[in-house]
Amino acid sequence: MPRYKLTIEYDGTGLMGWQRQAHGPSVQEHIEVAIEKFCGEKVELFCAGRTDAGVHALGQVAHIDISRNEEAFTVRQAINFHLQPARIVVVEAEEAAPDFHARFSATRRHYLYRITNRRARPALEEGRVWHIPTALDAPAMLDAAQVLVGHHDFTTFRSSECQAKSPEKTLDFLDVMQQGENVLIYTYARSFFHHQVRNMVGSLVQVGLGKWRKADLETALHARDRKAGGPTAPAQGLYFIKVDYE
Amino acid sequence: MPRYKLTIEYDGTGLMGWQRQAHGPSVQEHIEVAIEKFCGEKVELFCAGRTDAGVHALGQVAHIDISRNEEAFTVRQAINFHLQPARIVVVEAEEAAPDFHARFSATRRHYLYRITNRRARPALEEGRVWHIPTALDAPAMLDAAQVLVGHHDFTTFRSSECQAKSPEKTLDFLDVMQQGENVLIYTYARSFFHHQVRNMVGSLVQVGLGKWRKADLETALHARDRKAGGPTAPAQGLYFIKVDYE
Repeated sequence: MPRYKLTIEYDGTGLMGWQRQAHGPSVQEHIEVAIEKFCGEKVELFCAGRTDAGVHALGQVAHIDISRNEEAFTVRQAINFHLQPARIVVVEAEEAAPDFHARFSATRRHYLYRITNRRARPALEEGRVWHIPTALDAPAMLDAAQVLVGHHDFTTFRSSECQAKSPEKTLDFLDVMQQGENVLIYTYARSFFHHQVRNMVGSLVQVGLGKWRKADLETALHARDRKAGGPTAPAQGLYFIKVDYE
Repeated sequence: MPRYKLTIEYDGTGLMGWQRQAHGPSVQEHIEVAIEKFCGEKVELFCAGRTDAGVHALGQVAHIDISRNEEAFTVRQAINFHLQPARIVVVEAEEAAPDFHARFSATRRHYLYRITNRRARPALEEGRVWHIPTALDAPAMLDAAQVLVGHHDFTTFRSSECQAKSPEKTLDFLDVMQQGENVLIYTYARSFFHHQVRNMVGSLVQVGLGKWRKADLETALHARDRKAGGPTAPAQGLYFIKVDYE
């Protein structure tokens, strides 16, 4: 029973997120339905990281087992054919080793958060960015962000609904770049807690707006209390960029 | 009667283009209606370059005269308020000299054309790019493009419906860049004929696909016949980027 690794791009707008939901369309359901149409099998899709409603992906990864032995190229083309017209696409399909697991074999997850920082709301990028009309101090955000890099108790930045046992993780990288009228936040780590990127971004924006200083972010981190953190940044600015495997 | 220069961004999807049309929504109509809601005046909007249905803009420029003397900031905010929820926004409003004319004072127009060059259709960028699944040779396109730079008779690359008297113009710059899985074509000139950018892109893609060589593009240019040119590239990949004024 061959296993395939799928690299997936989607526009999160109007979707309930990755995971199958009773009350609306999800990425998982769309792809599982497309796979069933292609090969007649009900499969379960395992992904590298579940994304929330409205979050986009350029390089989500998932794996499936199907009984038919097909060229990876055929698997991709067939799934994409049946996915139409959903704004979900398999960018790449590859045959994977039997012990490859999209979630457990992943060594690093990369996320990008996009902010449009100008007075006028975005016309072309509506639903693709967080629009902040007040000027952000990106260098101050970058400086403060380094407080979060390293091994920490991230209770302040994880959703109160997060089911992970330990609140500790290592954040490898957190960059803040000004690019024209956009502020981009790029981060990677072995894994993230539920809402962690959006919660970190929400707090960094407090710094960017001059409401918090670096020391305030440090205090919030050490409080180990979600209520000490900034607001959760909206889903629509978040992109799951890529997943590294050994 | 103060004159205002407006810099405008829009998502061309679902719009009939810039110019007012009897049979569907246009950028011009949306903005003129918003202005009337704001100041009660029926104004006529003059733009730097009319765009076709489906073409996007990041920096279209237009001017209006209104009798009320308002801060440019107020003009922008008020128009944007009334434009909602259309995917059209005034990015910038400035008071302009009485002799400023969005079209006639323009010295240079800049356009970007975006191609997604990969097998899988675009999910996030659907309606924002031309999807070409076969590999393009971007360096060959860049090399051939230089044939078009300079002063030429552009009959081969202008729409048969183009109303300009002379078929001659000077093309200042035409660049082709590979950027990851995208091929970007950037061009500027004092002005362009109707469909000129899309027709040039269509012919450059013939080169990128290996169907034409540089010499074939040269032959097409010298034929001075639209039928000698490549197909017209789709509207959705084209962006009106900015306008220069003296």
